[in-house]
Amino acid sequence: MTTTDRERACFEAGIKFGSLYHQFAGTPVSPRSAGALESAIESAIENQPHCEDVSVTIHAERLEPDLVQGYTELTGRYMTATLTVRYQDTTVTARMELEDEYPFMRITAIDP
Amino acid sequence: MTTTDRERACFEAGIKFGSLYHQFAGTPVSPRSAGALESAIESAIENQPHCEDVSVTIHAERLEPDLVQGYTELTGRYMTATLTVRYQDTTVTARMELEDEYPFMRITAIDP
Amino acid sequence: MTTTDRERACFEAGIKFGSLYHQFAGTPVSPRSAGALESAIESAIENQPHCEDVSVTIHAERLEPDLVQGYTELTGRYMTATLTVRYQDTTVTARMELEDEYPFMRITAIDP
Amino acid sequence: MTTTDRERACFEAGIKFGSLYHQFAGTPVSPRSAGALESAIESAIENQPHCEDVSVTIHAERLEPDLVQGYTELTGRYMTATLTVRYQDTTVTARMELEDEYPFMRITAIDP
Repeated sequence: MTTTDRERACFEAGIKFGSLYHQFAGTPVSPRSAGALESAIESAIENQPHCEDVSVTIHAERLEPDLVQGYTELTGRYMTATLTVRYQDTTVTARMELEDEYPFMRITAIDP
Repeated sequence: MTTTDRERACFEAGIKFGSLYHQFAGTPVSPRSAGALESAIESAIENQPHCEDVSVTIHAERLEPDLVQGYTELTGRYMTATLTVRYQDTTVTARMELEDEYPFMRITAIDP
Repeated sequence: MTTTDRERACFEAGIKFGSLYHQFAGTPVSPRSAGALESAIESAIENQPHCEDVSVTIHAERLEPDLVQGYTELTGRYMTATLTVRYQDTTVTARMELEDEYPFMRITAIDP
Repeated sequence: MTTTDRERACFEAGIKFGSLYHQFAGTPVSPRSAGALESAIESAIENQPHCEDVSVTIHAERLEPDLVQGYTELTGRYMTATLTVRYQDTTVTARMELEDEYPFMRITAIDP
C-alpha cells in the first residue's frame, strides 16, 4: 500500500485532535483555572510525534452561564484549538471549533 | 484549500485512534474485566462520524506480569486495535500496535 | 493520627466515585452503546481495592434529546451509579445522581 | 443514616484523588511539559467542592528513563500529590505517592 506524505500528515493531525479532546474532556474548569489548562493541553499534545504547535483557547464567557458550584467540565462547547503537524516535508494545519453544537475538526491547510 | 477524500479519510481515522487511546488509557483493567472493556471501547468509538468498525484486543497475557492488587491500568502496552473509516467513497483501515515499546498507529489500507 | 475504619471506608468510596466519573466522562455514547459502557465501567471500578460492587445506569431517555450526529459524550447528566466498598469490617454504600444539574455523590449507608 | 463531618470530609478527599488520577492519567508528559501539567492539575481539582488546596509534583527524574520519542504518559509512577479538603469545620489532608509500584492514597491528618 502506498500513502502520500499529505495523507500521513492528515492522519497524524487527526491523532492529535482525538488525543487532545478525549484526554482533557471532563476536566473541572472555571474562568480562574482556564489559563493553566490551556497551557497544559498545548504542551502535552506538542509532545506527540510530528506535532509542531498547538494553540488552545477556553472561552471564559461560554463557561460563565454553565458554572455549577463555581465550575463546569471541559467539553468542545467551551474550546477552540488549532494545531500544526509536520510529516516529512508536508505541513498540515487543522482546527477544532464549535459548529451547530458539535466540536467540528477540520483540515485548514496542507502545504505543499 | 483542496483536500482529497483520501486525505479527509486519513484525518478521520487519526481522530478515532487519538480518541480511543486517550479516553480509555488509565482505566483499571484485569484479565476478568478486559472483555467488557474491549466491547465498550469498540462501540463507543463506532459512534463517531465516518467510523464503520473498531476491533480491540486487550492481551490478558501481557496484563498478568503487571498486576498489582489484581489489576493494572490500560495503556498501549496491553492493547491492539484496528479500525475502518469511510469518508465519501474512500475507506481507510488503520492499526495500532506495540512496536519498540511505543503504541504505533499506522494506515494499513486506503481504497480506492 | 488515628482514623476509624468508617473514615477509611468513606475515603475509599470517594476514590471510586472520582475514578469512575473522570475516567469515563467524555466517552462517546448512544442508546445503542450505553449497555456495553455500563458493564465496562462496573467491572473496571470493581478492580479497585476494597470495592465490592458497582452498578451504573446510563439513562437512554436522557441521551436522546442531546444526540448530535447520533451520539453525545458521557457526563453525570446521563448517569446514576451506586457502589459498595468494604474496609475491614465496615461497609459503605454510596450513590451518585443528578441533583440540580450537578452529579451529586453521597454516602447512603455505613455499616456498622 | 448518620455520618460525621470527619466521614464526609474523608469521602470528599477520596473523590478528589480519584478525579485527579483518572482525569490526567495517560496525558503525554515530558520534563519540558511537566510544570504546566502540575499547575493545571492543581487548579482543576481545586475547583471541586470543599477542596482547599492541591499540590502536585511530577518527578522529572522518573520520567527520563521511560521517555520514548521524547515523552511518556502520566501515571502514578511519576507523580506525588497532596490535598486538603474542608467539610464544615473538619479539615482532612491526604497524600498519594508510589509505594511498591502502586500509587497509594492515604489520609495523613484529620482535624479536629
